[in-house]
Amino acid sequence: MDYQSHFQSAIEALHAEKRYRVFADLERIAGRFPTALWRHDGKAREITVWCSNDYLGMGQHPDVIAAMTAAVTAMGSGAGGTRNISGTNHPLVELERELADLHGKEAALVFTSGFVSNEASISTIAKLLPDCLILSDELNHASMIEGVRKSGAKKQIFRHNDVAHLEELLKAADPARPKLIVFESVYSMDGDVAPIEKIVELAEYYNAMTYIDEVHAVGMYGPRGGGISERDGIAERIDVIEGTLAKAFGVLGGYITGTRALIDSIRSYAPGFIFTTALPPALAAAATASIRHLKTSQSERDAQQRQAARAKAVFSDAKLPVMPSDTHIVPLLVGDADLCKKASDHLLQRHGIYIQPINYPTVPRGTERLRITPTPLHGDGLIETLKDALVETWQTVGIRFSTEQPQHAERSSAVTSLVVSQAGG
Amino acid sequence: MDYQSHFQSAIEALHAEKRYRVFADLERIAGRFPTALWRHDGKAREITVWCSNDYLGMGQHPDVIAAMTAAVTAMGSGAGGTRNISGTNHPLVELERELADLHGKEAALVFTSGFVSNEASISTIAKLLPDCLILSDELNHASMIEGVRKSGAKKQIFRHNDVAHLEELLKAADPARPKLIVFESVYSMDGDVAPIEKIVELAEYYNAMTYIDEVHAVGMYGPRGGGISERDGIAERIDVIEGTLAKAFGVLGGYITGTRALIDSIRSYAPGFIFTTALPPALAAAATASIRHLKTSQSERDAQQRQAARAKAVFSDAKLPVMPSDTHIVPLLVGDADLCKKASDHLLQRHGIYIQPINYPTVPRGTERLRITPTPLHGDGLIETLKDALVETWQTVGIRFSTEQPQHAERSSAVTSLVVSQAGG
Repeated sequence: MDYQSHFQSAIEALHAEKRYRVFADLERIAGRFPTALWRHDGKAREITVWCSNDYLGMGQHPDVIAAMTAAVTAMGSGAGGTRNISGTNHPLVELERELADLHGKEAALVFTSGFVSNEASISTIAKLLPDCLILSDELNHASMIEGVRKSGAKKQIFRHNDVAHLEELLKAADPARPKLIVFESVYSMDGDVAPIEKIVELAEYYNAMTYIDEVHAVGMYGPRGGGISERDGIAERIDVIEGTLAKAFGVLGGYITGTRALIDSIRSYAPGFIFTTALPPALAAAATASIRHLKTSQSERDAQQRQAARAKAVFSDAKLPVMPSDTHIVPLLVGDADLCKKASDHLLQRHGIYIQPINYPTVPRGTERLRITPTPLHGDGLIETLKDALVETWQTVGIRFSTEQPQHAERSSAVTSLVVSQAGG
Repeated sequence: MDYQSHFQSAIEALHAEKRYRVFADLERIAGRFPTALWRHDGKAREITVWCSNDYLGMGQHPDVIAAMTAAVTAMGSGAGGTRNISGTNHPLVELERELADLHGKEAALVFTSGFVSNEASISTIAKLLPDCLILSDELNHASMIEGVRKSGAKKQIFRHNDVAHLEELLKAADPARPKLIVFESVYSMDGDVAPIEKIVELAEYYNAMTYIDEVHAVGMYGPRGGGISERDGIAERIDVIEGTLAKAFGVLGGYITGTRALIDSIRSYAPGFIFTTALPPALAAAATASIRHLKTSQSERDAQQRQAARAKAVFSDAKLPVMPSDTHIVPLLVGDADLCKKASDHLLQRHGIYIQPINYPTVPRGTERLRITPTPLHGDGLIETLKDALVETWQTVGIRFSTEQPQHAERSSAVTSLVVSQAGG
């Protein structure tokens, strides 16, 4: 057994499939978002970032930076321990209160990432409920799929956002069996939104628990930034609302909110929560400042929606293949890993515009895309510049415009591929 | 199915077993470590922390705070994306270079926690090697156990630090089968050290890969803080060295180091790495500052060893039941969850001394303990004060002194319980 050559083959397989990933080495510049320094071949060049999940630019908001700086200066850099062993710092306690309030729940629990919050919470809930049946949307994020797998519970996948299929599965299950429906509010690669109210109605009728991932919605939807569930006035009918501090709130970490008993159970039983160092006080303080700002300020949300709508309209007018999206996310279909990478490289090299190619396993094969995330700080001028660069790139690289798209590369095929991938393990 | 009452029962079970955990709400005070503010019942009180994993006090080192503050001010609070999608920030690239250099390896990869680094790396390595057999020390940390489980690979548990048992298992296995030996250098609850060289010799003889967890050793052992593997001059013979940025380095995050092909494989295939937001630039910059300081400064390591040895000697002289430990960790055996909690509460309420009780599942039942971590900043006077407080507490709460300890509560029983727990669950 030659271990090294084995790992080398694993890497060569990615090159052969044209999906080997190169990470762009970026240095953000506080106060000048979306401008950043890109380091490459020993040179540093100013570029415009168009694919960040710092959706509202809060990662550079003066209040957030001030809160973080003040906490580092007063309390130091790290938490110094797990939550149980000296790591529960006061800013983290305050952050959990703030999050419970944001979603109108009794309690909240913070994890070091959204990935861990999903994996640890879903697996622990399902393990604590005897013979739990998990009903999972086929396009759920990798972290939710890991949570489902880790639980060891029986799972059934329902077709993406298909409430009729979900009802079929609920109806067929033993009424006495505990059931957990896991789904997202905003699906981040397509930008579509779940029929939350209908799912909740089914859950109530068939006595199932509901677990919603709102990571691409918190801060951005609802009058206080409580997500789509707040916007639709349905938060109190959902058992667990999960979110992140690392996207619209601009920091790091994930969380869940729910009843005191549920949160206490996950706090007490989840290895992924128990055996890990707590979030540092400075990150907790920064997140709290960001959440508080967005609870009262609507201007960032309005500007984001306006610029996203404008980008979609401008791109569509230029015949760029904008994929259907109900949210702030603007995906442009390329449909081929190699072309997608070439387009991204060309945009960066020629135009100083950074949009990472999105390929398998993040999206199904055949739906490779450029995923654009306009923020309040991407003004009309930047959108025009981007549109011109995209059109030039589409022509130079040889990607189909919307008038030339074949039907089969649309969302339906994405769904089919993912069913296979999720069901298959 | 009444879900809420089910979660309530799960919590009540913990109360009944006397292992319900209450987190102390602490506020660290930069520049005054190990003093912190403890908030309780609406009051804030200054206390002395004796159980932090900020082992060298680097979480409050002026260079670390300065690096973190400068990076927040210049680059903002968050990374803004996953590593692949705009999140690879320049300080993180520099941190990975620093870590590779620290352990003399070709490359390094940073995760948002040590837990995730173990879970994601072990599971991915074992999945990439066809029909891999994992040989795992029975006292490995929960994060390693999760990695082993998640891999789905066949595992065999060897008795704690028992190289004869390990060799038996290696000898019995098919020579052509890929094998991965996973173990720790310093076991954090007992403070004992693995026979690394013997394990490495076996691995070389039987052609197995080696994966060592050095989270309780990096920064603290070896002339540059490269851990026990550096101290013993054996780092280059180990395939994967895993460590943390959240203990002696005083920040947050975990990492692995190894060959370029291995690191690239995990970077490319591990969902727990791919689908999560990158570590913020400020944390990366703080960690780099801490590592660089400890690469050249020996004084913190010397002072930690001196104060740990002094604490052990002073406690032993006072007949406090110091458990055998080869490192900076000083465990005092209590052997009962209820007494352990009472001792901890009494120390905090009466003496303003904070030592969290350590109980199941962190340690096996019957070996509940107070785990004390002297740092360079715990001076001789603090050790005397602690000894007096411990003796008073032992008498008041009614815990056995070392002259009264029964034999069966020693390390051998700890080992037996954990075999069952790891193998069974």
